[in-house]
Amino acid sequence: MTGGLFVSFEGIDGSGKSTQARLLADALRAEGYEVVLTREPGGSPGAEEIRALVLQGDPDRWSAETELLLFTAARRDHLERTIRPALAAGKIVICDRFADSTRMYQGLSRGNLRAKVDALHDLMIGVEPDLTLLVDMDPSEGLKRAKARKTAEERFEDFGLELQQRMRDGFLDLAREYAARFRVIDGARTPETVAQDIRAALHGRLP
Amino acid sequence: MTGGLFVSFEGIDGSGKSTQARLLADALRAEGYEVVLTREPGGSPGAEEIRALVLQGDPDRWSAETELLLFTAARRDHLERTIRPALAAGKIVICDRFADSTRMYQGLSRGNLRAKVDALHDLMIGVEPDLTLLVDMDPSEGLKRAKARKTAEERFEDFGLELQQRMRDGFLDLAREYAARFRVIDGARTPETVAQDIRAALHGRLP
Repeated sequence: MTGGLFVSFEGIDGSGKSTQARLLADALRAEGYEVVLTREPGGSPGAEEIRALVLQGDPDRWSAETELLLFTAARRDHLERTIRPALAAGKIVICDRFADSTRMYQGLSRGNLRAKVDALHDLMIGVEPDLTLLVDMDPSEGLKRAKARKTAEERFEDFGLELQQRMRDGFLDLAREYAARFRVIDGARTPETVAQDIRAALHGRLP
Repeated sequence: MTGGLFVSFEGIDGSGKSTQARLLADALRAEGYEVVLTREPGGSPGAEEIRALVLQGDPDRWSAETELLLFTAARRDHLERTIRPALAAGKIVICDRFADSTRMYQGLSRGNLRAKVDALHDLMIGVEPDLTLLVDMDPSEGLKRAKARKTAEERFEDFGLELQQRMRDGFLDLAREYAARFRVIDGARTPETVAQDIRAALHGRLP
C-alpha cells in the first residue's frame, strides 16, 4: 500500500514484542513521524467488539474454524477502518500481531488449518506488512515473562512450554517462507539493545 | 449429510417463508417426526451473539465484506452446534434462510460479492440443504406484508420495491442454478394452500 509504511511485530508470548512495538512508536514519534500504534485481534472499534466476543467466556465455545472466521472479520474491519486510512495519509502503522499470528495460532496450534488460513487470507484480506519484525525468544524465558503478567485474556499464554517451542519454530519457519519482509530480532537482550536493532532495521524504509 | 433431512426456506421479506417454515415444522411434528426449526442468521447461542453484533447498531458500521465474514462465522457455528448434530440424530432440520440468502443479500444487494460469497462458502461451509423451498411472491405484495410487521432488525426489509424486485429475480435465478435441490412455491395464495403444496414437496424425501 502506497504512502506510509506498514510494520508488524510477531513472536511468542513473553517475547517482548508489545514492549518493542511501543518503544518503536515512541522513537519514531520523537523523530517527527506520524505513527499509528495498533494491535490484533482488535485495533478498530468493530474489531475490538469481535475480539471481546472471541476471547471472553469459555475458550472452547468457538471451534477453530469459527474463531478463524471471526478473527478474519476483525482483521478486515481493522484494515478498512484503521490501517488503510493511516497508510493512505502517509503514516507509519505499527501493528502488534497481524496475519502471521493467525497462521501460527489457528493454522498450527488450535487446528491444523494452515491451508484454510492462507486461502481465507488471500480471499478476504490480501495484504501483508511491508516489514515484519519477529522478536525471537527462547520459550522458557518467554513463558516466564508471560506468566508474570497474566490477564483475563490469558488463553494464548496458557499452552505450556512444548507449544511455545512449536510456536517459536513455526515463526522461524514463517520468517524463511516470507524472507523478503521478515527480519528476525534476537529478543534475549535488554529492551534498549533490542529497540536499537529494530530501529536500525527500518533504516532506508521510512516514508 | 446422512440420517436426517435438511430443508431450507428462502424468499424475499414478506413472502411468508417464516410462517411456512413454522407450519411445516408443526405438521411434521404432528405426524411424529422429530423436527428442529431454526433460522439464520443465528440458530445457535454463538451464532445468535454474532447476529446481534451485526444487526444491532448503525447498519453501515460493517462493510459488506466484514458482514459476509461475520455471517459465515455464524453459519459455521450454527452448522456445528445445531444442524449437524440434529441430522446425525436422524432429525428433520427446517432452517429459515441459509446460504442462498447470503448469495442474495451479500452477493447481490449490499456488495457485488457473489464470487467471494461462493469461494468463502466452499472453503468454510461446504454444505447445501437437501431441499430448498423458495416461497415466491410479487414484491409489492411482499413489501406490503413486511411493512406490517417492522421490528428493530428491519434493515433487510427497508430497501424498497426496486431492490425487492431484484431479490425476487435473483432468487429465481438461484432456483435455476441449483435446480436439483430447489422447489419454487407460489406464495401468493392462502397460507393453508401454500402449506399443503410444501408438504407435498417433501413427499418421498422424509427420513
